[in-house]
Amino acid sequence: MPGATAPVRLAEIVQALGGELVGDAALEIRRIASLEAADAHSISFLAQARLRALLDTTQAGCLIVRADLSEAAQARGAVIVTADPYLYYARLSRWWAERRRAAVKTGVHASAVIGEGVRLHPTASIGPQAVIDDGAFIGEGVIIGAHCHVGAAAVIGAHTRLAAHVVFAEACRIGERGMLQSGAVVGGDGFGFAPFEGRWEKIEQLGTVQIGDDVDIGANTCVDRGALDDTVLANGVKLDNLIQIAHNVRIGEHTAMAACVGVAGSARIGAHCLIGGAALIQGHIEIVDHVQVSAGSFVMHSLRQPGHYSGIFPIDTNANWEKNAATLRQLYTLRSRVRALEQQNKTP
Amino acid sequence: MPGATAPVRLAEIVQALGGELVGDAALEIRRIASLEAADAHSISFLAQARLRALLDTTQAGCLIVRADLSEAAQARGAVIVTADPYLYYARLSRWWAERRRAAVKTGVHASAVIGEGVRLHPTASIGPQAVIDDGAFIGEGVIIGAHCHVGAAAVIGAHTRLAAHVVFAEACRIGERGMLQSGAVVGGDGFGFAPFEGRWEKIEQLGTVQIGDDVDIGANTCVDRGALDDTVLANGVKLDNLIQIAHNVRIGEHTAMAACVGVAGSARIGAHCLIGGAALIQGHIEIVDHVQVSAGSFVMHSLRQPGHYSGIFPIDTNANWEKNAATLRQLYTLRSRVRALEQQNKTP
Amino acid sequence: MPGATAPVRLAEIVQALGGELVGDAALEIRRIASLEAADAHSISFLAQARLRALLDTTQAGCLIVRADLSEAAQARGAVIVTADPYLYYARLSRWWAERRRAAVKTGVHASAVIGEGVRLHPTASIGPQAVIDDGAFIGEGVIIGAHCHVGAAAVIGAHTRLAAHVVFAEACRIGERGMLQSGAVVGGDGFGFAPFEGRWEKIEQLGTVQIGDDVDIGANTCVDRGALDDTVLANGVKLDNLIQIAHNVRIGEHTAMAACVGVAGSARIGAHCLIGGAALIQGHIEIVDHVQVSAGSFVMHSLRQPGHYSGIFPIDTNANWEKNAATLRQLYTLRSRVRALEQQNKTP
Repeated sequence: MPGATAPVRLAEIVQALGGELVGDAALEIRRIASLEAADAHSISFLAQARLRALLDTTQAGCLIVRADLSEAAQARGAVIVTADPYLYYARLSRWWAERRRAAVKTGVHASAVIGEGVRLHPTASIGPQAVIDDGAFIGEGVIIGAHCHVGAAAVIGAHTRLAAHVVFAEACRIGERGMLQSGAVVGGDGFGFAPFEGRWEKIEQLGTVQIGDDVDIGANTCVDRGALDDTVLANGVKLDNLIQIAHNVRIGEHTAMAACVGVAGSARIGAHCLIGGAALIQGHIEIVDHVQVSAGSFVMHSLRQPGHYSGIFPIDTNANWEKNAATLRQLYTLRSRVRALEQQNKTP
Repeated sequence: MPGATAPVRLAEIVQALGGELVGDAALEIRRIASLEAADAHSISFLAQARLRALLDTTQAGCLIVRADLSEAAQARGAVIVTADPYLYYARLSRWWAERRRAAVKTGVHASAVIGEGVRLHPTASIGPQAVIDDGAFIGEGVIIGAHCHVGAAAVIGAHTRLAAHVVFAEACRIGERGMLQSGAVVGGDGFGFAPFEGRWEKIEQLGTVQIGDDVDIGANTCVDRGALDDTVLANGVKLDNLIQIAHNVRIGEHTAMAACVGVAGSARIGAHCLIGGAALIQGHIEIVDHVQVSAGSFVMHSLRQPGHYSGIFPIDTNANWEKNAATLRQLYTLRSRVRALEQQNKTP
Repeated sequence: MPGATAPVRLAEIVQALGGELVGDAALEIRRIASLEAADAHSISFLAQARLRALLDTTQAGCLIVRADLSEAAQARGAVIVTADPYLYYARLSRWWAERRRAAVKTGVHASAVIGEGVRLHPTASIGPQAVIDDGAFIGEGVIIGAHCHVGAAAVIGAHTRLAAHVVFAEACRIGERGMLQSGAVVGGDGFGFAPFEGRWEKIEQLGTVQIGDDVDIGANTCVDRGALDDTVLANGVKLDNLIQIAHNVRIGEHTAMAACVGVAGSARIGAHCLIGGAALIQGHIEIVDHVQVSAGSFVMHSLRQPGHYSGIFPIDTNANWEKNAATLRQLYTLRSRVRALEQQNKTP
């Protein structure tokens, strides 16, 4: 959401978020900005050594920096000194956004449809055209966007927010402080069919989705309900946009996945993993904690050791690729030819 | 949808679905469960030989098994004997879910918007905030979820169900007993542009989508309308989540696609094919019946023989991958070097 | 949208779109059709030499052709001669669709929810159940479909159309003559988190999405808002379905992307590029103008020269693939073995 909000004094920022302020505490800050786009009423941050050259050119009124850059930064304006400027920026961005969200109206929009037996906290906000089915639970400070659908007996924990157009289906549960982006579908049917005489007989999906606290789910991402048991996202899981989480998948705490990842049914992924964009994870396999998978890689088997894994066809000019791909199609033959040469050289 | 529903007696299950019951016909079943999660009021199934060890530990009140496991299973509780326990489970799950759906209210929710000339069967159910445009046809027993949009002159066949937030656009047609998950978009415009002086001129998409009976379409899956002719999904096609079906694609009967597959324009895919997750199918090619494509593979050319096809870069530790990828970039050169060695060895 | 509309005379078509008509100007045209599906009241086009054989069999009442095929085509019916039949067809399709859209009612549907301070052009059309938040701008001739959500202070330029179920979030802007398909989400939060003691701290996304004129965005495609600066799509960009555009990406004029592409954060893509389906573009890289990327390729580094690039594992029978993949896993070793052989052959 955009930066437009009431300006604040630097003193208010440091009072709320800590850090050592060097400079004019009364300076009025109107926006948070990148080093390149900042002006005299912007606060910016310098978190990477490679961007140090921008110290000389940025117009930011105040800079968030580490102690080692404090002196250089002071030469050009106000400074907030902190051990981790990127983390400080993260917290500043949230504090900034919270001030704006304070304006969200609590209560139920007149056009929303609320079922029977819904337990709705008085501080929750239900947007226009939202539909909350019978028996759902909507916790303290929850924000439900326009057109959201919360299914029967679903549970939305305190301070969780649903952007517009989220589907959170029947009997699924999410904990506190979650964030679901628009178009996310939690609790669609898993893809389950039994073959019979050349046809497919649908298996009804009778499980749910169980989601912990502090979980983010991206736009148009799908998390399917379990077949019999549940699909489970542990605390702190972060899913980007357009991700597929199939039925009965379990994802451990604080694992993050970039956009377009696909996880097939019953895969178990550990805690603190990093899954790169459009990576693909086979069904019924296990990935231990602290695994990193490069973008575009297909995890075909269990990964039982922590570490960094990749499987990507390197990009090249199309002409080179065609030559290499032609050889690749006969790679097995090439190995045989090398073996033959080795035999030849051995036998005098 | 969750397992919570009124309990049944084992006798009722066997009466409805057949199979040979050995044990207490009056046993009350409260849920269908996996072997691991089952309790004394659960019914479970054992379909794979490799799970046989679970016979000793499962707490299931009743087990669905093949005849060869009947005796072993009887030692520990009630048993339903059947030739195909997985199929029996599929049918049991549907029977179970049907009992729950009996509670869905027929008729039109007060907040839905129904256009002019809509032909609406009295047994159909139109959910809150749904919009049905002029001239649409809604068949017997159809269930339209919250916020669905059915376009003008669209046809929804008997007993087809749309979960919440489905878009089924103008003039498209689906047969009987279909199931569309949330966020599915049927009948968006195909991606058609004519190049003109470095720009793109849009080609309006004037075809429709024609879908047979018993077709399932997953959450956030897109099936585009044809440019002039139609996009066609035959009877029994099963599409998982986040799949892209471009304009003028034709998919044969009972073909199933796992999540994240992309099918480019005018591809023709046969009947009884299995397309693995995130596989990619080139436009304007043909795939015959009974083809299996591994997940993550790119079908660049027509496949004219039934069989199993793959094209996946194997995953490895990142360190190994980097070494192999470096060689791969010069694979053509490696082949030349082998050829040179062979020439050398030939000439004495 | 389907071809059903009032018929026209050939004379009207040529009057509107130009071209040289040879044949009966009074011929009544009821639909635009492919060569194969055309009948005596259809108009069709022949744009590719390889389809010339269809001249003998098509039943089209009128054919759009180049001058060199004019004589052959006249032998069988009416003809419109033009330099670029495919372009003519594109314009004809739009003219045809415009006539149908003339029937769209202007004004606000009774069930829509319009916020305070919305600037709404009297010729705009707001569909049923749409929600337009405070301060949004809706330009001349804009069409907003059913269930769309336009966020606070968002700007929709003249003649832009949103199909049903589009989310166009707070403070984002699109120019004139744009087209957004159903399920598209513009302005979801970018995926930004700062690591802190094994957890992720959310970075609020304070930028917007800025979209030029004549931009098309496909069904269920996501364009995230920037973290601090904006995400930018230049004039004429065309995005197919299920595409992910991460925060702070910039895409140049008239670049087109096929379905399922993923573009990671802060990537900069030039003008007039063609990105094939399911291609993946690394974050923070740069691609110059006039680059073509094959479908399924992963752009891992900047592409600084125009040209055509690929990186695809060739598909094969599964049996062959298994043999080649096994060798590929040891490709580095194979290169070492070749080097050893070369050394051996050198030393006598």
